[in-house]
Amino acid sequence: MFLRVARMEAFSDGVFAIAITLLVLEIAIPPGFEGHLLRGVLSQWPSYLAYIVSFATIGAIWLGHNTITHYMHGANTAFLRLNLALLLLVSFLPFPTKLLAENLGSRDDEKVAATIYGITLLGAMLLLSLLWLQALRANLVHPDTGDEEIKLLTARLRPSLAIYVALLVVGWFTPFVAVIGYLVVAFFLIFPIRLRRRQKAEPAVS
Amino acid sequence: MFLRVARMEAFSDGVFAIAITLLVLEIAIPPGFEGHLLRGVLSQWPSYLAYIVSFATIGAIWLGHNTITHYMHGANTAFLRLNLALLLLVSFLPFPTKLLAENLGSRDDEKVAATIYGITLLGAMLLLSLLWLQALRANLVHPDTGDEEIKLLTARLRPSLAIYVALLVVGWFTPFVAVIGYLVVAFFLIFPIRLRRRQKAEPAVS
Amino acid sequence: MFLRVARMEAFSDGVFAIAITLLVLEIAIPPGFEGHLLRGVLSQWPSYLAYIVSFATIGAIWLGHNTITHYMHGANTAFLRLNLALLLLVSFLPFPTKLLAENLGSRDDEKVAATIYGITLLGAMLLLSLLWLQALRANLVHPDTGDEEIKLLTARLRPSLAIYVALLVVGWFTPFVAVIGYLVVAFFLIFPIRLRRRQKAEPAVS
Amino acid sequence: MFLRVARMEAFSDGVFAIAITLLVLEIAIPPGFEGHLLRGVLSQWPSYLAYIVSFATIGAIWLGHNTITHYMHGANTAFLRLNLALLLLVSFLPFPTKLLAENLGSRDDEKVAATIYGITLLGAMLLLSLLWLQALRANLVHPDTGDEEIKLLTARLRPSLAIYVALLVVGWFTPFVAVIGYLVVAFFLIFPIRLRRRQKAEPAVS
Repeated sequence: MFLRVARMEAFSDGVFAIAITLLVLEIAIPPGFEGHLLRGVLSQWPSYLAYIVSFATIGAIWLGHNTITHYMHGANTAFLRLNLALLLLVSFLPFPTKLLAENLGSRDDEKVAATIYGITLLGAMLLLSLLWLQALRANLVHPDTGDEEIKLLTARLRPSLAIYVALLVVGWFTPFVAVIGYLVVAFFLIFPIRLRRRQKAEPAVS
Repeated sequence: MFLRVARMEAFSDGVFAIAITLLVLEIAIPPGFEGHLLRGVLSQWPSYLAYIVSFATIGAIWLGHNTITHYMHGANTAFLRLNLALLLLVSFLPFPTKLLAENLGSRDDEKVAATIYGITLLGAMLLLSLLWLQALRANLVHPDTGDEEIKLLTARLRPSLAIYVALLVVGWFTPFVAVIGYLVVAFFLIFPIRLRRRQKAEPAVS
Repeated sequence: MFLRVARMEAFSDGVFAIAITLLVLEIAIPPGFEGHLLRGVLSQWPSYLAYIVSFATIGAIWLGHNTITHYMHGANTAFLRLNLALLLLVSFLPFPTKLLAENLGSRDDEKVAATIYGITLLGAMLLLSLLWLQALRANLVHPDTGDEEIKLLTARLRPSLAIYVALLVVGWFTPFVAVIGYLVVAFFLIFPIRLRRRQKAEPAVS
Repeated sequence: MFLRVARMEAFSDGVFAIAITLLVLEIAIPPGFEGHLLRGVLSQWPSYLAYIVSFATIGAIWLGHNTITHYMHGANTAFLRLNLALLLLVSFLPFPTKLLAENLGSRDDEKVAATIYGITLLGAMLLLSLLWLQALRANLVHPDTGDEEIKLLTARLRPSLAIYVALLVVGWFTPFVAVIGYLVVAFFLIFPIRLRRRQKAEPAVS
């Protein structure tokens, strides 16, 4: 009754790819801009911002997920259930993204929208960290994985949780700053990988 | 004219991943909550409940499907047609989920919505059981699969059908209780796998 | 600059899976049935019929596509362009399906809807046949494929084109009968595979 | 922390397949054509045109992406980040497509829509070219890839950028001509592959 890593990856990739693509469906120009399309397009900046933040975050989570499963030589069911919980949040993300896009700029509601959005991101990142912990504890990681590599991934996942909590607090006072913060965190999660790779000159084997 | 298990899995995974992700598109805050977004978000609890129940059920069906095809060394066309019928119901599920989300709490219609929802779940679980029966009868299962493993999967699939029928009856009188019941069944279908794995210490090979 | 069969299959499976799953998004109960949900659900029978016909047809095309690529040991670019044209029609199908669902039963428009729907199905089936012809002509088929197997697939694909043309004519006079006809053809395309397999007792190797 | 080419392909194929399929969701007949469905269907020609141009362009990008990754024996993270940026634009494309479909024919807004559409296409093609440059510079390409093959792909990608810039200018004066131009470029990107293949008689190995 065990599950192969390959099919879990295929199913997860499907959910990641769909969630990242569905985000665009919520973007639309409201009526009232006939003959002034450029103004209408520009008026939707919160939608584009929310789109990019969510896209970058799902991209970062996909990269992290990819890295974790790459080190694994098998899956147990605790891992699979945690993975389902992560996918639940990832596929839910288009809804908080829509809330954010619709309410950024409206004084009363943007705090609520930014907080719900931030909680969803925090939850997803927490589950990604738990997936990594589970892989380590249950010996799902290849025995020949270097200690340095394990430490590096651990060191990268942990601080992002603290930053998300801090941004949640910031978001209650200045939602816009928090959203920019979420974007920066997502880029931070994609960039360090690059920093590390610089050390290795040769490309990875496919 | 035979079909490989791998491509059937890829196509099925695609449908599972999309159906599980499309569920979120139906969630939206109706107009009239401007300036009271939190209240608006909370008012949509039936949507979140329906989302989670459908997500958990599709997740459980995916796990079961994964287990069945894992034991198989080939597919016949009766299996493939049953599989198409299962995918028909899985990809249809967003509609009953929407009906449930929109009508939970409205006295007159919630019975109907819960019943249609329950029938769809029952049908999907029935087809999953038929897939397993077909795999066993047509000798599609690897010869070296242990009898114990076969019995265990059979024992897990059968009682869920009886529970779904019972919940259908319950749902006619107290729809909300039935919906919670569907959630519990989905968790029950995900959990026993874990109980069984505890016996095996070593992780599965990828 | 050649393309692997595997990635073409993966991309095609993605499009098939999404097109087959998006069909459900168009199903909704119109306003005015509050307190009479069952009546509202029943009133949408054209949607369910159109859903099932389109699902069965895409399922049949997927089975045929699967069979064709199974026999192939490589792809050329003429094949890939034909394949893109097939995917264009398959991913377009949700639109004619919506037209059919909305207009079945309305005297004036159902002929037009049924004709557009039928032309799309005919086009898709024609492209599937052209894919098979291209595979045969360009020697993309495995040399050790039996002549009998090739004849059988050819014999199955050709008559369906004639039937689709006949149903197009029928659909101009009695659209409902044509739609039932499209459903029967889809089942006919799924069933013969089974008839043939009966001859081979052993299951296919995965 | 390196990534396999296979999983990057799977994730990218998912995004390509979904973006290409979501395009159809925006096509709908506006109210007011009851009893005149054919006229209603014909009135939506800008939607079909935009659908076909976007489908052909994503198809061409997919073919190019497929060709690039086919030559690669591994990925580095700079490549993966560029790939995420490409996917960002591809999954964003349904929005400019919708803008184009809604505004083609309306004097005031079609310039703006055609320009936004063209910029998105130019950006996607630019990123595809950068992916190829990155693969060449970072030695991600198989050492045994022929120089001629590398030159040919380079020669095909570069001129399309100049043509897109030219069409952007054209689009500001005669949007419709530019849109037809985008369609021709997409076909041009799909056709040359065929011209080249003619030279090799034998089909590619799967």
